[in-house]
Amino acid sequence: MKLVIAIVQDKDANNLRTKFVEANIRATRLSTTGGFLKSGNTTYMIGVEDDRVDEVLALINETSRTRQQFMTPPVNLDAQMDSTSGYPVEVQVGGATVFVMPVDSFHQF
Amino acid sequence: MKLVIAIVQDKDANNLRTKFVEANIRATRLSTTGGFLKSGNTTYMIGVEDDRVDEVLALINETSRTRQQFMTPPVNLDAQMDSTSGYPVEVQVGGATVFVMPVDSFHQF
Amino acid sequence: MKLVIAIVQDKDANNLRTKFVEANIRATRLSTTGGFLKSGNTTYMIGVEDDRVDEVLALINETSRTRQQFMTPPVNLDAQMDSTSGYPVEVQVGGATVFVMPVDSFHQF
Ligand code: NI
Ligand code: NI
Ligand code: NI
Repeated sequence: MKLVIAIVQDKDANNLRTKFVEANIRATRLSTTGGFLKSGNTTYMIGVEDDRVDEVLALINETSRTRQQFMTPPVNLDAQMDSTSGYPVEVQVGGATVFVMPVDSFHQF
Repeated sequence: MKLVIAIVQDKDANNLRTKFVEANIRATRLSTTGGFLKSGNTTYMIGVEDDRVDEVLALINETSRTRQQFMTPPVNLDAQMDSTSGYPVEVQVGGATVFVMPVDSFHQF
Repeated sequence: MKLVIAIVQDKDANNLRTKFVEANIRATRLSTTGGFLKSGNTTYMIGVEDDRVDEVLALINETSRTRQQFMTPPVNLDAQMDSTSGYPVEVQVGGATVFVMPVDSFHQF
């Protein structure tokens, strides 16, 4: 058994939870703030058998990895002369930090 | 030293805390949601000497294990013909998921 | 890699975060209550290379250790005869509980 601790961006947290549910992987969500990632983040604690660790890592990578995204910035009504207003720009989103932790013993009551 | 991570149902969390206080076991409560258990849950982090791990597990089992309980469902005023309304039914409550984690070193400042 | 779990008093949490940022140490803050320390507390999860663990412990000790502080208790207007009202008294503040945890593997996506 391993305990996987995964810190992901809030915006990716719900997609990741859906993937976990589909794969029948039990994850507990912690309320966390700041630190590893710039914007708001969510931490999952996931208990898995050793032979499913790679599957969990693949789900996190697939859902939450750092990637480029086009975003339309809000139009600034005061800047009528700024020709870049309202055009999509490329921004970096996502990112995940993951610790795979050894477990001495696991119990369910 | 071990770090015990215990995920229990919210409804058992206060009883468990009382047991920890009585046994002079120091537990930190994390705000958590979803995952291992169906309804709302609470996670405790408990730092203990190796020779008290079994005692901690026994307290968690005693307070939080899965068990059957009789519950009276709310009476449905619209269902006058339903003869089962208001009669107690047996439901499953409780349940705990526990990880005993190795600790490299422990410090108090 | 190690995962350092540090439980400190709320009043020391922001100073500690500033120290971590200055030292380029990434810490995730968990919402926690009760347990190891008498008043409100905050838990940080800090991922560090093995050779920086002592530096992290030194920052926690420096910022959050148990210490004596003079505090002026609120004046009790009803106790006009109590000559100790309003005089500073020495109280104990701070305190940190720290677990250094082994990590099987560390991943960033
Ligand atoms: Ni294992
Ligand atoms: Ni030990
Ligand atoms: Ni290491």
